[in-house]
Amino acid sequence: MPTISSVLTETSAGVTTITLNRPDNLNAFNVVQRAELHDAIIKANDDLDSAVVIITGSGKGFCAGADLAEKIPSGQTVEERLNKEYKPILIGIAESQKPYIAAVNGVAAGIGAALAMACDLIVMQSNAYFYQAFSAVGLIPDGGLSLHLSQQLGPKKAYEVMVLGQKMYADECLRLGLINRVSDADNLLDSTTALALELRARAPLSLRYTKEVMRKVAGETLANAISIEAGIQLITNQSEDFKEGKKAFLEKRKAVWKGC
Amino acid sequence: MPTISSVLTETSAGVTTITLNRPDNLNAFNVVQRAELHDAIIKANDDLDSAVVIITGSGKGFCAGADLAEKIPSGQTVEERLNKEYKPILIGIAESQKPYIAAVNGVAAGIGAALAMACDLIVMQSNAYFYQAFSAVGLIPDGGLSLHLSQQLGPKKAYEVMVLGQKMYADECLRLGLINRVSDADNLLDSTTALALELRARAPLSLRYTKEVMRKVAGETLANAISIEAGIQLITNQSEDFKEGKKAFLEKRKAVWKGC
Amino acid sequence: MPTISSVLTETSAGVTTITLNRPDNLNAFNVVQRAELHDAIIKANDDLDSAVVIITGSGKGFCAGADLAEKIPSGQTVEERLNKEYKPILIGIAESQKPYIAAVNGVAAGIGAALAMACDLIVMQSNAYFYQAFSAVGLIPDGGLSLHLSQQLGPKKAYEVMVLGQKMYADECLRLGLINRVSDADNLLDSTTALALELRARAPLSLRYTKEVMRKVAGETLANAISIEAGIQLITNQSEDFKEGKKAFLEKRKAVWKGC
Repeated sequence: MPTISSVLTETSAGVTTITLNRPDNLNAFNVVQRAELHDAIIKANDDLDSAVVIITGSGKGFCAGADLAEKIPSGQTVEERLNKEYKPILIGIAESQKPYIAAVNGVAAGIGAALAMACDLIVMQSNAYFYQAFSAVGLIPDGGLSLHLSQQLGPKKAYEVMVLGQKMYADECLRLGLINRVSDADNLLDSTTALALELRARAPLSLRYTKEVMRKVAGETLANAISIEAGIQLITNQSEDFKEGKKAFLEKRKAVWKGC
Repeated sequence: MPTISSVLTETSAGVTTITLNRPDNLNAFNVVQRAELHDAIIKANDDLDSAVVIITGSGKGFCAGADLAEKIPSGQTVEERLNKEYKPILIGIAESQKPYIAAVNGVAAGIGAALAMACDLIVMQSNAYFYQAFSAVGLIPDGGLSLHLSQQLGPKKAYEVMVLGQKMYADECLRLGLINRVSDADNLLDSTTALALELRARAPLSLRYTKEVMRKVAGETLANAISIEAGIQLITNQSEDFKEGKKAFLEKRKAVWKGC
Repeated sequence: MPTISSVLTETSAGVTTITLNRPDNLNAFNVVQRAELHDAIIKANDDLDSAVVIITGSGKGFCAGADLAEKIPSGQTVEERLNKEYKPILIGIAESQKPYIAAVNGVAAGIGAALAMACDLIVMQSNAYFYQAFSAVGLIPDGGLSLHLSQQLGPKKAYEVMVLGQKMYADECLRLGLINRVSDADNLLDSTTALALELRARAPLSLRYTKEVMRKVAGETLANAISIEAGIQLITNQSEDFKEGKKAFLEKRKAVWKGC
C-alpha cells in the first residue's frame, strides 16, 4: 500500500512548488507534515535548478494551523515544539537565499498564517483569509505572528485582530499591505507562477541580497543601514551578473544571468 | 462642602470605566488629576472584578493636554514632571495585564493624545480629534507621542502632523490605523462598552499575554520573536483555561474562564 | 568660459532651495555633483538666514540615480563611494537641525529616490515617480532605500517594488505615506515653497528637536521614549521662545521666534 505524502514538491522552469497535502484536515500541521515540509524547504533551498519557491495547499485550505487532534510525543512541551519543529521551517523560508511566495488558497489560521507571512511575497485567493483563533482557547499568537502583525498593522489593529479573532479576507489584507496580490478563485496557481517567473527573470543576486539586506537593516539607524547596504553592494557590484546586466542594458537585450 | 473628584471610577460587569472629570478645563491635566488618575489605574490593575478598563473624559473634551495655567511646584522641571507624574500613568496602562480602551469623546491634545495612544484599543467619536499643539509654542511632542506617531504613520506624515499641528479627525485616524473604531457622537460609551464586553468574553490569559508578547517582540528578529512567543505559549498552554477552552470547543459551548 | 555649476543654491525669506543642475542627465549623480551637493548642504545647515531647505532638480528629472557612464576614480570601490560620498550627503540632511523638503519634479530613481527619502517631507509632482532599477542589473537598493521602503511599506510591498522595479507614481506614494503632498505639474516649487513658509512660521526649536527626537526614540520602548522626550523637552521648556510662545498665545498675536 503506497504512502501518500503530506507534502508534495515539483520543480519546473526554475520554480519549485511545495504543496501541503492533507486536504481532509485543511492541511493542519501534524508531526509528519512538519518534518516533510522542513525537508522540502531544505531541498528547495539547495536545489540548483530552483530559483523561486511557491508554498501552497491542496484542497480548500492553505493551512488550518496546528492539528489539535494530533498525539504529541510524551514529554515534549509546546515551547520545544515551536522552537524545534516550527521555527526551522519558518527560518528556513525567511533566511533562504531564494524568494518564497505563499499562494494562499483558503483559510490560513494560526501557525498556518505564520507560514504564509514568513514568505517574501503573498498571493491570496479572493475568498481566502487569515484567522487567529488563539484567544478563543486561551493561547497567544505564535510562529512570529505577533511580530508580523504588529509591524504591518501597527499595535492597535494588531491587538484587535489577535484578541478578537477577526477573519481578514484577501481584499482587506491587500489594503493593509499584508499581501501583494489578490487572485480570482480559479487561477491562484497560474497567477502565482506568473509572478514567480517575473522574479526569475530578475538577477538572482538581486533577489537574494535584497532579501538579506532587508533583514539586516531592520531596526538600524539610517547611517548604519547605508553602510550595511554598501557592504553588500560591494558583493553584487563585483559579480559577473552586474557586468552582464550593464552590457545587456546598453545592447538593449535581455540579460542572461549566471547567479554569480 | 464635598470635594468633586477630578477622576471618577466605576466597575460593572467586569469593565472598569475611568472618567477624567474636569470638564470645564476639557480635562487638561493638573497635578491633582495626574495623581488621581494614577491612583485609579493602580486600583483598576489590581481589581479582581475588573477584566477590561475604559478611559474617557466627561464633557466636551477627552483631555486637552497639560493645563498651562496650573501652578507647578517650585523647583520641579518639566523633565521631572514627565518622568515622575506622567510616565507612571502611561506605563501603568501600557504594561497592565489588562486591556485598556480609550473612548475619545472630544479633543485629545498633547499629553491627552499620548494618554489615548498608550491604550491597547481606541474608539473615537466621529467629531473628536487628535491634535499636537507643541510647535505653536516652541515645545516638542511628549508622553511617547513621537514614538506612537512615527511607528503608525511613518516618519513623513508623523513629522508633518507634529510640526504643523494638524488636527486629525476620527475618520482619518481610522484610515491611518491610529484608532480601531469610529462611533456616532451620541453612543461612544455604549459602543466602547460593547467592545469591552467582547474582550471580556475572550480568555483573560490571551488578553494579557498577547499584550505582553507584542511588547516583548518589538524590534526583535523573526527568530527571536518565535522563541519569545514560544516561551509565553508554554505558560498559556499549561493553564486550566486552555484545557477548558479546548473542551468547550469540542462540546460546542461557551468556555467559562478562570484566568489561570 | 564660465563653468556651469551642477548644483545651484538660493536663499530667500528664510528658505534655501538647492537645485540639482545636470538636466541633460536627469541629474544623475557624478563625482562633481556629489561634491557640490554635499557642499551646498553643509552651507545650508550653517546658514543663519536659512530655516528650511528645499531640494529639487532642474529639467525633467529629480535625480536618475548614479550616472553609470561616469569614470570612477581608480581603486575606489562602490562601498567606499557609498560610505564616503553619498552617506555624508544623506546624513547631512537626516541629521540637520533644519527641516528638509524634497520637491520631486520627475523621476527619482535609485540613489535619487534615497536622496528624496532622506528629507523630512516630500512634495511630488503628479507625474513624477520613485523607481528602483537595481534588480535589472544585478544590484541591491542602497543609500538607505531598503530601510525607508521596509519601514514605510512593510516587508511584503517593499520586497515587491525593490525586486520587480515597479514605478511608484505620486498618487500611490501619497496613499502609502511615502510622501506628504502631490502638486500639479506646473506649480511644484510654488506649493513646496508655501509649505516651507508654513514650517518657517513655527518655532525653530520645535522643528529642530521634533526631528531629533523622532530619530532618538526610533526602536526604543515606550518607557525609554517618554524619558528621551522628557530630556529634550527640558531644553525647549527653558528656551526664550517657549516664553514668547506662551505670551503670544495669551495675547492672541503671532509669536516672534529667536530660535533659542
